[in-house]
Amino acid sequence: MDILIRHVNVLSPDRDKMLENANVVIEGPRIARITTEEVSPEPKSRCLEGRGRLLIPGLISAHTHSPENFLKGRIEAVPLELWLFDLFGSSFAFSEREIYLAAMVGAIEMLKTGTTGVVDHFWVNGAMTVEALDAVMGAYRDSGIRAGVAPLVEDDHKINEMVLRQNPELAGGIYGTSPPMSAEEYLAVLEAFFQKWHRAEEGRLQCLAGPSGPQWCSEKLMTGAMEIARRYDGGYHMHAEETKVQAVSCRQFYGQSAVAHLAEIGVLTERTSLAHCVWVDDQDIDRIAEAGATVVHNAVCNLKLGSGFAPVLEMVRRGVHVALACDGAASNDNQVMFGVMKTAGLMHTVRTPDHHRWLRARQIFGMATVEGARVLRLSGHLGVVQPGALADLVLLDMNTPAFTPLNDPFQHLVYAETGSSVRTVLVNGRIVVEEGRLLTVDEEAILAEAREVWKRRQQDLPPLSPEGRAFLQAQERFQQQVLARPFAVERY
Amino acid sequence: MDILIRHVNVLSPDRDKMLENANVVIEGPRIARITTEEVSPEPKSRCLEGRGRLLIPGLISAHTHSPENFLKGRIEAVPLELWLFDLFGSSFAFSEREIYLAAMVGAIEMLKTGTTGVVDHFWVNGAMTVEALDAVMGAYRDSGIRAGVAPLVEDDHKINEMVLRQNPELAGGIYGTSPPMSAEEYLAVLEAFFQKWHRAEEGRLQCLAGPSGPQWCSEKLMTGAMEIARRYDGGYHMHAEETKVQAVSCRQFYGQSAVAHLAEIGVLTERTSLAHCVWVDDQDIDRIAEAGATVVHNAVCNLKLGSGFAPVLEMVRRGVHVALACDGAASNDNQVMFGVMKTAGLMHTVRTPDHHRWLRARQIFGMATVEGARVLRLSGHLGVVQPGALADLVLLDMNTPAFTPLNDPFQHLVYAETGSSVRTVLVNGRIVVEEGRLLTVDEEAILAEAREVWKRRQQDLPPLSPEGRAFLQAQERFQQQVLARPFAVERY
Repeated sequence: MDILIRHVNVLSPDRDKMLENANVVIEGPRIARITTEEVSPEPKSRCLEGRGRLLIPGLISAHTHSPENFLKGRIEAVPLELWLFDLFGSSFAFSEREIYLAAMVGAIEMLKTGTTGVVDHFWVNGAMTVEALDAVMGAYRDSGIRAGVAPLVEDDHKINEMVLRQNPELAGGIYGTSPPMSAEEYLAVLEAFFQKWHRAEEGRLQCLAGPSGPQWCSEKLMTGAMEIARRYDGGYHMHAEETKVQAVSCRQFYGQSAVAHLAEIGVLTERTSLAHCVWVDDQDIDRIAEAGATVVHNAVCNLKLGSGFAPVLEMVRRGVHVALACDGAASNDNQVMFGVMKTAGLMHTVRTPDHHRWLRARQIFGMATVEGARVLRLSGHLGVVQPGALADLVLLDMNTPAFTPLNDPFQHLVYAETGSSVRTVLVNGRIVVEEGRLLTVDEEAILAEAREVWKRRQQDLPPLSPEGRAFLQAQERFQQQVLARPFAVERY
Repeated sequence: MDILIRHVNVLSPDRDKMLENANVVIEGPRIARITTEEVSPEPKSRCLEGRGRLLIPGLISAHTHSPENFLKGRIEAVPLELWLFDLFGSSFAFSEREIYLAAMVGAIEMLKTGTTGVVDHFWVNGAMTVEALDAVMGAYRDSGIRAGVAPLVEDDHKINEMVLRQNPELAGGIYGTSPPMSAEEYLAVLEAFFQKWHRAEEGRLQCLAGPSGPQWCSEKLMTGAMEIARRYDGGYHMHAEETKVQAVSCRQFYGQSAVAHLAEIGVLTERTSLAHCVWVDDQDIDRIAEAGATVVHNAVCNLKLGSGFAPVLEMVRRGVHVALACDGAASNDNQVMFGVMKTAGLMHTVRTPDHHRWLRARQIFGMATVEGARVLRLSGHLGVVQPGALADLVLLDMNTPAFTPLNDPFQHLVYAETGSSVRTVLVNGRIVVEEGRLLTVDEEAILAEAREVWKRRQQDLPPLSPEGRAFLQAQERFQQQVLARPFAVERY
């Protein structure tokens, strides 16, 4: 055995209750054995004392955008469409080192607060290149976290086009997520990316296809990306129906819902994960359930940007797999999954007086683990503390106010804990955080460099041009028109 | 000077922006001077290095119930009226030591996460006695936190009476917040409490009158309590309009809203603070504004129990003072104000598409400081970092992911920080937490004892009696009837 965790309390979403005083044996990247009988360590085993500790599967944040780690604490009190404008207005063409640092700041925050797995829907304010992807993968390699990176590209910004059609006098001044890149260019980069990085670092790193969203992508890009994901047996990750503006616009482009369109062109599959799905209707929910796709619920972000309530209770009822995520740090200013779990548990109560349908802590814990594993295409291998599962594990101190005194451990985990009781973290059977200290990289040096780089970069940010301001105003007018229209569902 | 905090970044809700590299001089319980010029410490001064630190006024949780610190992680997925039943069913007659421990567990959690002031709407599952009040005040005295305690009593449970009238076969099995206590008995205890504890410990401890709420109290109790609060120049703290059941019932008892009734009997004053106010209408909001009373918004609790959205945006627009609070740990499983600030900032966006009305981080910070000071009747003395103000201060480490890299410090504080960057805490000019370590009491011993006591006590909890179950079912039927009725305002 490589590692023995002794006398520990195990909490796993697939168990009814906490298993007390267990011994957990880890061999290589996997859990070999869990027993309440005494286990003697072997001479070369590393022993971790688990008394007074809670062992859980590492949390998985199934949707973020690492460059936004430089943009935390920056944008407030605007809805998504205007926020995108602020976001790309206050961003810049990241150097490879800057991409690395931004991803690393997030990885540090995640690991130290018990998140061991992340899906990075990685955007660049510039062309998506193999070098940019090497930079972000390098950060995840060095940090020790488990990561799937989905390069985000858009080649057909349908909402901006609608705004421009209404306001033909506006020509420039549009901030997009990236300069136009053709579907062919993107697919070539994506293929190279899969070849180089998919299942690297003993499977800890992986690639996903990441078309931005149906309102921002051509059919060619979306189907071509799925073709590559299939070829490499990788995931397919995209935004869908985040706002009413998107939902209304998609129905105009496609004559049907975005989800129906995705199903029609063959990209709604069990390998597909859709971030948000706030404005889906019941038929969409059924389509997602039938396809076996996963919805990634970004509880904090959906409130911060006023996007509305994703119909999570209805999704659960209809058999959709729902995972949880922080989303980027420009819309959830930290990357701490404990806050997301709590918000997800809190926010949906006000949607129905039938409290029997309200989410339970154990269910939420499952969304942050088992269902996240599905997005990483590691169902059955990740997200539980069971023999045979990958050893992505977190030890929390139970001698803290959050767990004192102890009632239902699932509820303490979801509602009382904030991430500050996390002490030791393993990924793929390797100890990456020990007693609160990150072992993989020099945390202080990384954070200091990130502060320094951003201080310099802030001075480069272009002021908002008159054209930009005019476009922003046109966008806001468009937004108000759309919000005033009746729609099939209501998510406020 | 007693303490000098050197080279620190100061963030105060009454300042437009962060003041960098300041020196803060503390004399006795107050801030004497703030300057960006160099200050030489005096021989007996204690120096705190502030480089890389953020100095903020301590946060104030303006409504909690300390015995619930034993009930965290215990009750989920039920609305308030059924939750109350669970709450008192899973509680017990606390001994004085147990009262002390429960308050101490909360004080420890609050101090270590930057909350320096609390209003404890203190209930006991038993008679409210001078001894019980001595026990809770003893905990706050020893912990070093600033606390106002409002003994919660009810003598006229109008909602239970309505349920019983509908279900005359039900006689016993009702869990109340306490056994019946007459208004006279309560007022005698309250008077003795004020005499003994009001402004004790150099003003750090204080008393408030704490009638439970208009739906649970007689007029005699409410006006008598105000009479005592006036005599001692103390605060007056109560629940109001938390749920639709309360709002509907109050209109039935009083023929008008609870707030209108409170105004009519003379207890809606500038010394009054009302927890919740979810189901108030516009006239109520104007009444509260005119009276100069304060509303205490319990963002997390209101969602957890599905009570609905307090009309905070409308209150702010109409000039109501809004403070923030955790509420008890049975409805917000931790006592960490950072989570409350974030939730308050997030939750109201979905109430209006007019994003210009959404709350700003600096405003929320003010609710958690300046407006909390008002509930403690220390406006102008507390909640800001200014010369002359009381030195209830928190130093946060800015070299953490939450503040890296730095954009708008107000937003980082409210949305990125979780409480884990808190390093040093002062209350009334005294250092109570230093570099994360609590100096006032033996934290480990207190938490260990709390765990031990609760483990034993859990075995004493009575199982739900058949009468209790029958009452619970009747309560749920009553609830469903009331929820189905149209009402003046809609808060879901």
